[in-house]
Amino acid sequence: MPLSDFYSPIAQAMEQNPLRPNWAMQRPGLISLAYGFPDAASFPYQELAAAAARLMADRTADALQYGPVSGPEPLRRFLADWVNTTEGLDVGPDNIMITSGASQGIALAARLLTPPGGTVIVESPTFIGALWFLRGLGIDVAGVATDGQGIVPADLRRVVLGLRRRGADVSLVYTMPTVHNPGGFDAPVERRRELAELAHDLGLLFLEDDAYGDLIYDGERPPALYTLAGRDRVIKLGTLSKLVAGGMRLGWAVADPEDISRMCALKADSATSPFAAWVTAAYLATGALRERLPDLRRMYRARRDVMLEELAPLREVGCRWVVPSGGFFVWLRLPQGFDSEDIRARAEAQGVTYLAGHHCFADGADRRHLRLAFSYLPDDQIREGTRRLTAVLRAELAAAAAG
Amino acid sequence: MPLSDFYSPIAQAMEQNPLRPNWAMQRPGLISLAYGFPDAASFPYQELAAAAARLMADRTADALQYGPVSGPEPLRRFLADWVNTTEGLDVGPDNIMITSGASQGIALAARLLTPPGGTVIVESPTFIGALWFLRGLGIDVAGVATDGQGIVPADLRRVVLGLRRRGADVSLVYTMPTVHNPGGFDAPVERRRELAELAHDLGLLFLEDDAYGDLIYDGERPPALYTLAGRDRVIKLGTLSKLVAGGMRLGWAVADPEDISRMCALKADSATSPFAAWVTAAYLATGALRERLPDLRRMYRARRDVMLEELAPLREVGCRWVVPSGGFFVWLRLPQGFDSEDIRARAEAQGVTYLAGHHCFADGADRRHLRLAFSYLPDDQIREGTRRLTAVLRAELAAAAAG
Repeated sequence: MPLSDFYSPIAQAMEQNPLRPNWAMQRPGLISLAYGFPDAASFPYQELAAAAARLMADRTADALQYGPVSGPEPLRRFLADWVNTTEGLDVGPDNIMITSGASQGIALAARLLTPPGGTVIVESPTFIGALWFLRGLGIDVAGVATDGQGIVPADLRRVVLGLRRRGADVSLVYTMPTVHNPGGFDAPVERRRELAELAHDLGLLFLEDDAYGDLIYDGERPPALYTLAGRDRVIKLGTLSKLVAGGMRLGWAVADPEDISRMCALKADSATSPFAAWVTAAYLATGALRERLPDLRRMYRARRDVMLEELAPLREVGCRWVVPSGGFFVWLRLPQGFDSEDIRARAEAQGVTYLAGHHCFADGADRRHLRLAFSYLPDDQIREGTRRLTAVLRAELAAAAAG
Repeated sequence: MPLSDFYSPIAQAMEQNPLRPNWAMQRPGLISLAYGFPDAASFPYQELAAAAARLMADRTADALQYGPVSGPEPLRRFLADWVNTTEGLDVGPDNIMITSGASQGIALAARLLTPPGGTVIVESPTFIGALWFLRGLGIDVAGVATDGQGIVPADLRRVVLGLRRRGADVSLVYTMPTVHNPGGFDAPVERRRELAELAHDLGLLFLEDDAYGDLIYDGERPPALYTLAGRDRVIKLGTLSKLVAGGMRLGWAVADPEDISRMCALKADSATSPFAAWVTAAYLATGALRERLPDLRRMYRARRDVMLEELAPLREVGCRWVVPSGGFFVWLRLPQGFDSEDIRARAEAQGVTYLAGHHCFADGADRRHLRLAFSYLPDDQIREGTRRLTAVLRAELAAAAAG
């Protein structure tokens, strides 16, 4: 009798995350637009080595020892100052908890506020990782419509009331109102206000994932839901994965100290790597991020523009997308009747791949979308990959029109 | 209505971990024997800085980028070779998963094999962290007796059958058969064989936590339960926290590739820090651990002996302990009728503290034990702290004898 006969029902239900077996997709010749990876060439290699060297030369024991579950004070202090300055929040180090990426923040906040068997509302579409992490906790996910300005309030009301009528335990809404992944849109302030009011009406809480808020290329950053709906209604997540390096696995949660403390009690890794956190804090203390950020925005915006330029001919054959305000992705919609998962094998035969959009929906029903990452590959690869994709899609759509 | 009104029942039930608010206990004048921290003076500061410098000079993108959920291949390969050499296992890199300390391995294996509301059997006493991590997942814990040679097989049978009669979903047994924390004992090979047979009889699985197996000071390391009971029955955990540095937060699980893959699907941090993992792998690749390990064993054994020397007078007043074969702790039992939690305030008034042993029991009922760490402080502090403790306990026990 193999160990797998003992898997819990939740573990049994966890199929493979579609992004994970594709890890080998960086195979020669295939251009992958699937991964939302940051650009590796611009990682601050030298600066991080210097930060590590300083800490180790000083024999900074805290960087190599067990430490507070909420994370090192210097990093929490830096991040409190950062969100106060960049987003106008008013928090201190005790409002910050270091997490292993925003990913772990999603899981911790969900566990704080939702029992196994409970339901979390997610946007349609949503961050694929959120669906995985929530399901892995035995939490059901229910989708709510978005309209390019964020969650549609009337649909949120409909979904919540419907779920509650059927006896579901639901209060938490996972949302990315700023630079939505994969949608690429920002919810305007009026929409945020509506949602904040609705939260008070219906007794809802928001888990506000702001993974890309520092990477808005065009326009203003709207005020955080955390500010508009209030601390009693919102836990806010951020990440250094896009700003420093994904491989640090450093994110943070903003919440009241009492809630931080309770999430710490649920954190089963005794703390996010103090080594990674101290090295990163020492790097950030140099003020490097403020200098680096404009360069990052310029680089990613240029890549976005390369992709959009190559995608342009697809407008004529009925494909649609919004120009993402920032972040890493174009979210492309095929005309009615086409299936992005079906087309993927043919795209791969032509040397390009992507994330089929149905993976980003709680019910997996929408098959018309493709998530295209412009973040990871250099400009020429983005251009070549998008060209290949455009050729494949034009052929597909033209064949159908002819047939 | 504060956010805390929305806490899930599991989160509501999580009181504060007794070790966590004591973080500030490193206050001047108070000698803390509470923490199972490794010695900070012997961390390989320079070697880790050199490893980081090499990786960054080579612009090793994998060290700063998202990577495989199971962890970097070089570290998994090193650890497979390590357990094959040191424990006679026969595994490859695909049998290894990098976790954020053995802590996270406990949570992942429990989630793989036990649903929320299910029960995991733990030793009486057990690692305090395991109790916390399991409860944080909504998993019940039930204690089984140990006798200084590990789990008492007859009691395991009694507890399992009793739980099942009452309808509990129970198959997983969390155990530290080697250098038990806090007990300090090793289960001899005959006992392990008995337990392996019992597992087959009763349909039980073991989560074998081997956090201290490389730090046996005296005698031979017994064969792993993983070897004796077989891969279909055991997930085995290890950690680099004691061998390299606790602040790396690097542990590992050994299991079949299928089971590793399913645990990866449940891992909600997208991977343990690739930065910490690559730096540590580069350090380990130099062969440093093999040189360092005899020094670590000598140092910790010397500290143990300092503590045991100072504790010796307590034998006369009825205290008992086994000489720990390795690891970080002495597990001291008071005479009948004394309560280690009651005495703690008086010990702290005399400048020494410890972990009251009831925290190490699933039911918290045993109040007679103290867990005393000799790992963290230099010899003179261990000596002074143990002297203070010995004085306090002698006074307590003598007063009772007189009264």
